Amino acid sequence: MAYDQYFSAALAKLRDEQRYRVFIELERIAGRFPRAIWHSGDGPREVVIWCSNDYLGMGRHPDVIEAMVTAARRMGTGAGGTRNISGTNHPLVELERELADLHGKEAALVFTSGYVSNETGIATIAKLLPNCVILSDASNHNSMIEGVRRAGVEKKIWRHNDIGHLEELLAAEAPERPKLIVFEALYSMDGDLAPVNRICDLAERYGAMTYIDEVHSAGMYGLRGAGIAAREGALHRIDVIEGTLAKAFGCVGGYIAANADIIDAVRSYAPGFTFTTALPPAVCAAATAAIRHLKASQWERDRHQERAVRVKSALNAAGLPVMHSETHIVPVMVGDPEKCKEATDLLLAEYGIYVQPINYPTVPRGTERLRITPTPFHDDALIDALAEALVEVWGRLGLPLQYYTLAAE
Amino acid sequence: MAYDQYFSAALAKLRDEQRYRVFIELERIAGRFPRAIWHSGDGPREVVIWCSNDYLGMGRHPDVIEAMVTAARRMGTGAGGTRNISGTNHPLVELERELADLHGKEAALVFTSGYVSNETGIATIAKLLPNCVILSDASNHNSMIEGVRRAGVEKKIWRHNDIGHLEELLAAEAPERPKLIVFEALYSMDGDLAPVNRICDLAERYGAMTYIDEVHSAGMYGLRGAGIAAREGALHRIDVIEGTLAKAFGCVGGYIAANADIIDAVRSYAPGFTFTTALPPAVCAAATAAIRHLKASQWERDRHQERAVRVKSALNAAGLPVMHSETHIVPVMVGDPEKCKEATDLLLAEYGIYVQPINYPTVPRGTERLRITPTPFHDDALIDALAEALVEVWGRLGLPLQYYTLAAE
Repeated sequence: MAYDQYFSAALAKLRDEQRYRVFIELERIAGRFPRAIWHSGDGPREVVIWCSNDYLGMGRHPDVIEAMVTAARRMGTGAGGTRNISGTNHPLVELERELADLHGKEAALVFTSGYVSNETGIATIAKLLPNCVILSDASNHNSMIEGVRRAGVEKKIWRHNDIGHLEELLAAEAPERPKLIVFEALYSMDGDLAPVNRICDLAERYGAMTYIDEVHSAGMYGLRGAGIAAREGALHRIDVIEGTLAKAFGCVGGYIAANADIIDAVRSYAPGFTFTTALPPAVCAAATAAIRHLKASQWERDRHQERAVRVKSALNAAGLPVMHSETHIVPVMVGDPEKCKEATDLLLAEYGIYVQPINYPTVPRGTERLRITPTPFHDDALIDALAEALVEVWGRLGLPLQYYTLAAE
Repeated sequence: MAYDQYFSAALAKLRDEQRYRVFIELERIAGRFPRAIWHSGDGPREVVIWCSNDYLGMGRHPDVIEAMVTAARRMGTGAGGTRNISGTNHPLVELERELADLHGKEAALVFTSGYVSNETGIATIAKLLPNCVILSDASNHNSMIEGVRRAGVEKKIWRHNDIGHLEELLAAEAPERPKLIVFEALYSMDGDLAPVNRICDLAERYGAMTYIDEVHSAGMYGLRGAGIAAREGALHRIDVIEGTLAKAFGCVGGYIAANADIIDAVRSYAPGFTFTTALPPAVCAAATAAIRHLKASQWERDRHQERAVRVKSALNAAGLPVMHSETHIVPVMVGDPEKCKEATDLLLAEYGIYVQPINYPTVPRGTERLRITPTPFHDDALIDALAEALVEVWGRLGLPLQYYTLAAE
């Protein structure tokens, strides 16, 4: 085929730029979380995962697994249709009720992924507001950027978490013009938080709608795991909450929660919702079990935070360049894409520690890093082994230390 | 909130146009397929589903369910990350191998849904071809239309299945300009087929790439269920095959299969693939079990076709306006959105028969219809009951008969 040249050229470009990605094939061991079998080129080997977004290990919780098993046996493996054509299954309706209750909203709507919920949710809401302008944080996730693009309306980007800049942009618009502020509660590559109440203050002052992404915070923060907006007492000030079932809730899928009319309008007008098969009942039942468990149990959240603090202090004590983070994300700076890849290759091959290198375009060039995500199930021995391995790898590769101290000056 | 007016106005518009959709809440009974519990406003009731896209009932196959159960127990309920960050699970890699083998291609790539695979697959491929023009069949599914839009390249629409028109458009382009022809193997609302080999003839003559959607045909047609292109002996002439795991394979998710470089390039460049959580191992294991079963077993395919013929003749014999269809889809014309909804409401409430009304925008106005999808598990008694119920409902609502005879003239 004459077209081959284009695809091979596109791949060669990535290799030249050191951006070609190799996926690590894993088989998680539910009973021995966070351990997994790594299917390497040389055969299977047991490793410890240190970069999972199954942040609380709910994907291995016996109640969650049994909910999936029971629903699969009773109702089968798929939904069998779009939401409109036979796919609206009972566990999915229950899940939507559970999510609405979690976030204190009238209704919720489930999508096939968090990506789709942002992409089609933001686009559909903005399109329903005449002459809408979207105000988007500069660090928003790719799925939000795509949602803003697809809305096809005017957009203004405010500097990350810069409230003054947001106010400047809001003040420049006519008071009666519909405005939609979209931002994340917790930015997952740096681990920093949005100033939620100050954003809501501005939204109220300038008459804007608010759309928050709680993908990396729902389940993990706030009473009953309702997220950062809940923890800050700002839930009622937020119009639309978006989240995922694939991280703290251990499954797959995404959602928005809002008042009944917003949800009904998105349900009715979003092509990325209408023309796609509904989530399987077994997935919905598992997600509901995870949400219910985390509403009642504080143990996972407390232990999660305690483990993150423990990892940060162990790595800091070892002199490693831990970046400042207010949350459960532990980024360790490398600052070079090749060294970042080399470090993680060494960790995996020689120490059985799996941390994925985070390179451009996920983070800006020059800020390449390891992004470590401790869970409640990473015990002291695993943390000590991680710190020791990192120190050795840092020494072997001559990587820079004390980034945090320097940066804090 | 001052914004409420916009959402309530959008909903009022739908109600005025008779386009407001009410989803039917179902609980499928895996052991008694195609039966389900309908959670109606008046409590639960048993019904027979006649509009599922679980076309072969694989979602209830014991091997498929047990594959999901086993993987969930061993590996948990979620993948735990994007493909790049800890989410590439062993059953997902096996599934991709299975799909590549099914379609006789070097590689395959799994997405969270068929919708996403078309949307991000078409867009990414077209963007990698300099100055590409896309030639798209007028009846292509919304997910393909969105993929074409997002490519941001020039597009030309050819009249549905009109080979002459396609040739005209191809001939008008410079020979060296990259061209991508996108079309469906089987159009699911009318049940008609694309002239696959004649499209491939043109693609070869004019040097175009071919992208076929086998969403409503993979698993159901061709040797081992490889689809319509395979049945027509055209598999090797097609560059990219797109399909779903949510219909004949009874689960959820989508995929493309192609040569290794195309797959690797889409894997590397598609944001809708990169920034989303991987499918859970339990879903992948179930899909693989379904594909493997259908590769080896012809029974489901034969029985499926035989049942479709049986339904068509029963409804034709009863004088009902069955639309012409070469495939397993049995559309019955109503031609009016309100009557279409009334007919299906009656069928559900009084006969325990669930068929979703298909109205605009899924089909053109004036062609509103029932879309009946027989499976291998709809037995003679169910078919006879369907025919009797339809005749009664047609009489009660004074619906037009003999559409097929008239249209064939």
